[in-house]
Amino acid sequence: MAKAKAPEKRVRILDAALKVFAEQGFYNARVADVARAAGVADGTIYLYFQNKDDLLISLFEERMEEIIAALRADLEATGGDALVRLRRMIERHLSMAVESPLLAEFITVELRQSAKFVREYENPRFQEYLTVLRDLVEEGQREGLIRSGMDSRLIVRAIFGALDEVLLTLTLASTTRSIDFREVAETLCDLFFHGMASGPRPGTMPRGPVVAP
Amino acid sequence: MAKAKAPEKRVRILDAALKVFAEQGFYNARVADVARAAGVADGTIYLYFQNKDDLLISLFEERMEEIIAALRADLEATGGDALVRLRRMIERHLSMAVESPLLAEFITVELRQSAKFVREYENPRFQEYLTVLRDLVEEGQREGLIRSGMDSRLIVRAIFGALDEVLLTLTLASTTRSIDFREVAETLCDLFFHGMASGPRPGTMPRGPVVAP
Repeated sequence: MAKAKAPEKRVRILDAALKVFAEQGFYNARVADVARAAGVADGTIYLYFQNKDDLLISLFEERMEEIIAALRADLEATGGDALVRLRRMIERHLSMAVESPLLAEFITVELRQSAKFVREYENPRFQEYLTVLRDLVEEGQREGLIRSGMDSRLIVRAIFGALDEVLLTLTLASTTRSIDFREVAETLCDLFFHGMASGPRPGTMPRGPVVAP
Repeated sequence: MAKAKAPEKRVRILDAALKVFAEQGFYNARVADVARAAGVADGTIYLYFQNKDDLLISLFEERMEEIIAALRADLEATGGDALVRLRRMIERHLSMAVESPLLAEFITVELRQSAKFVREYENPRFQEYLTVLRDLVEEGQREGLIRSGMDSRLIVRAIFGALDEVLLTLTLASTTRSIDFREVAETLCDLFFHGMASGPRPGTMPRGPVVAP
């Protein structure tokens, strides 16, 4: 709409916003801080974004779009049954703590920062991410790998919640760069895959001897 | 310290703060809004609390203290093995959506509202809540009900994250009052208890026929 908009300037502003929001928190950050970090005049930001909230939502949507596109391509390349790809998705989610710590911080901390964002914004990209997860769970149910009686919507929320919380913990840990997110992913897969497994289901919990680690 | 402080006025201010924060969001809410809802003068709030952040943290700590005390008493009255009590804890957590919707909203939405709160405040009450959960998991491991090889800290974070996300979903759902949180709790117990069960562990996932719901 406004003239003289440059796509690379928009990208630079979003990159700066990610850095500023992650470092200062969304509410403490001012549009002027983002402008300074991006090396543009304050007014320039408003050529591209209506206000700070619009900047937050645009940043979230664009990063999620990239995450989802890369995830879909990776899952297709991975192939295999639904559990093989679900494992891959869990690994990718947790790897963010090491590979994109600013983005991980933005997603785990800032995502719920604004009650308005949580309550009023429909959040189509987040829904899309949940849909990728749900498709895998339902495919697993059709393949007979996951109990078909389980409510896939609810299971997906539980898995996402667990991943989000664990990613938050990894992100806030000062030793983030030395954590082995693959080992963490393995434990979560172990938990969820056994939890969802089809096959004989005892009426009560098995009381057998403890299996050595 | 300041004179003329009345414990019941403090309680009234905290009750008002819960209502105002849940309705307007922490950042939009002003101390003056809390004062009006509590029926006290603006200045009175500062007899009891340093600022809005102090009000948020005090509210969170006191409510968590009540939640934890009631939970511990309930778990002791419930008795039984670790899984029986873990099921009870999961039910209690989710029941908040129906029984204390304002508190549920405060905990699921406001808890991460302030990046400062998440990053700088040590949050001893939250740690205590996680410790109750962890004690149950580790007791379950000693009782041979939960695989002893699982990292209890990580499992506890995963369970808490799942509960928090599902409670958020229930809380934001407009039909909250008609949801059957016990059914939701049952599905999550089904997921986690099978996921953590000791006993024979197949090297690969069981590929048996799908069990009917």
